[in-house]
Amino acid sequence: MPDDSLSYAAAGVDPARAGAALTSISDQIQSTHGPEVLAGLGSFGGVFRGTFAGDDPQIVASIDGVGTKTKVAAMAGDYSGIGADLVNHCVNDILCQGARPLFFLDYFGCSRLEDHVFAQVVGSAAAACRENGCALIGGETAEMPGVYVDGEVDVVGAIVGLVEGSRRLPRTGLGPGDRLIGIASSGLHTNGFSLARKALFERAGLSVNDPLPGGEGTLGQALLRPHLSYLRALEPLLADESQPILALAHITGGGLPDNLPRVLPSGLMARVEDGAWTEPPVFAAIQQAGDIPRAEMLKTFNMGVGMVLFVRQEDSSGCLSALSEAGVEAWEIGSLARGAREAVVG
Amino acid sequence: MPDDSLSYAAAGVDPARAGAALTSISDQIQSTHGPEVLAGLGSFGGVFRGTFAGDDPQIVASIDGVGTKTKVAAMAGDYSGIGADLVNHCVNDILCQGARPLFFLDYFGCSRLEDHVFAQVVGSAAAACRENGCALIGGETAEMPGVYVDGEVDVVGAIVGLVEGSRRLPRTGLGPGDRLIGIASSGLHTNGFSLARKALFERAGLSVNDPLPGGEGTLGQALLRPHLSYLRALEPLLADESQPILALAHITGGGLPDNLPRVLPSGLMARVEDGAWTEPPVFAAIQQAGDIPRAEMLKTFNMGVGMVLFVRQEDSSGCLSALSEAGVEAWEIGSLARGAREAVVG
Repeated sequence: MPDDSLSYAAAGVDPARAGAALTSISDQIQSTHGPEVLAGLGSFGGVFRGTFAGDDPQIVASIDGVGTKTKVAAMAGDYSGIGADLVNHCVNDILCQGARPLFFLDYFGCSRLEDHVFAQVVGSAAAACRENGCALIGGETAEMPGVYVDGEVDVVGAIVGLVEGSRRLPRTGLGPGDRLIGIASSGLHTNGFSLARKALFERAGLSVNDPLPGGEGTLGQALLRPHLSYLRALEPLLADESQPILALAHITGGGLPDNLPRVLPSGLMARVEDGAWTEPPVFAAIQQAGDIPRAEMLKTFNMGVGMVLFVRQEDSSGCLSALSEAGVEAWEIGSLARGAREAVVG
Repeated sequence: MPDDSLSYAAAGVDPARAGAALTSISDQIQSTHGPEVLAGLGSFGGVFRGTFAGDDPQIVASIDGVGTKTKVAAMAGDYSGIGADLVNHCVNDILCQGARPLFFLDYFGCSRLEDHVFAQVVGSAAAACRENGCALIGGETAEMPGVYVDGEVDVVGAIVGLVEGSRRLPRTGLGPGDRLIGIASSGLHTNGFSLARKALFERAGLSVNDPLPGGEGTLGQALLRPHLSYLRALEPLLADESQPILALAHITGGGLPDNLPRVLPSGLMARVEDGAWTEPPVFAAIQQAGDIPRAEMLKTFNMGVGMVLFVRQEDSSGCLSALSEAGVEAWEIGSLARGAREAVVG
């Protein structure tokens, strides 16, 4: 090539590099493929069997990212949980409709592709797909110098799952007196990272290597703990013929106040008792570092509750036992009452 | 809120702004929904009917972005085609498997949400979904200060479509002598923008408002012309009982040399005659501005060919007539021969 001619690689984009990075993790991706995957990597689109059991199979789909958790991963040099964050967030979203995942697609955008970052993220996504019984059938990698800040990445995942129509959530028939059961989150999951970073790193001058105030390990470890998938813990209750789960709310951006009303019918409000659950110490650290009002904390973070089950009063203790048997921590955190469609936490 | 306390909005993220922007285009999104959409906006995931006609329905899924075309949109202050770029690129990808789109999900990532940009992008995506008979059933908006360069956006789309197994492409039976028919692109579509920008704006010092050398209108207009969807033009040929289309290759990143082999079996090569089609003037402008070797141009850009049909020799003229009737420009650009699985353009 002539000396002052331009090439795509010189413009900051190297398709060959992306291809090589993908090859390095293709075994991990292939390991998520069951017989229902009819074509995967390398074609112009993944192909999945389109015949489903049941009288009224319904497809549930969602797309999401992990926010600026990637910036903390960059600070700590550890992207090993980011793929699980992406997959598990999506799995929980469609779980709120009662759906189990079928397949997943990922997008990796960055200023410049770094092989080990890509392999950590997509390798971790493949592992999480396998754990959730979900096939990773497609993905895209984009190098976009000038759009992404140098060294930063964004990841996006799209999930497609299935639910039998008669088992789709939320069910009708929520009423006053129904109970809210909260399941423990592992920490921030994938929401509120811009505020957390500003409070901890800018305001309080802490670093990812500092010890977590009031807790164990480092701040980086606490912040990067992967988003939990609630699929395995909730599967037995979702399969239960008595259908004890009336609704599910995944507590993401907007926290309990914004996410609980998403499944409420009009005329019902949710009352949540703040403090009815065990709050991971990372939230107090953020609150203190940023001098953040409690109300702002509650509407930004999950505060330790990753998923909320809406159940009848008489089913509450049975559900708590089932969740305990499934190995997750859960608490009755509130109940429904007549009122404007909103959630009050206090 | 106390004066020196932190809020999520102060950290650069305002969920209320995203909600308001979405409300402004909800009618456009709703207009893409047919009776097979069982739940759309506002739930934790879009829901689509999961029963399909046919003996062997197969689901085809793909995810993609539009690359740094968004940077040119930012320069020109015109994002009105970016949503169509996103949707049409995805539609063409699954079309290469013979699939028609069912539904679409979009992701909009940015440093800070600007209402009019969001409304242009997602509004344009909704319009393109409608034109392609595809439901827009979900989306996500993420403000990520510090990950995205100020004022920049990235957009990602995931598409899910359907094909009857017996009609899935590529078909077996490609052989020496089969013809390649190229359909005109509208310009760069969504690939090669980093190189194009470097050549035109950095190297040659041109701006989006400069006239397109050797063409009509401005450089910005030529660069931003939306990615064409080939669904409507190809539908009659895909539905034809004689199945004249043996394979389709969407010419995206990697150009003709990288995309043609994706559908070739081993033992067959594609010979393409460079110059057998009409090349839009924007490519010569880029080539000249960057002093870019022809080989580098060919493996970065589509060079004026957006989709390639693989057909038997005896079907070539019939297909060309059908494409002409469908209102698209097309040319016989090459043929298959025995050889190593590659494409030679020369």
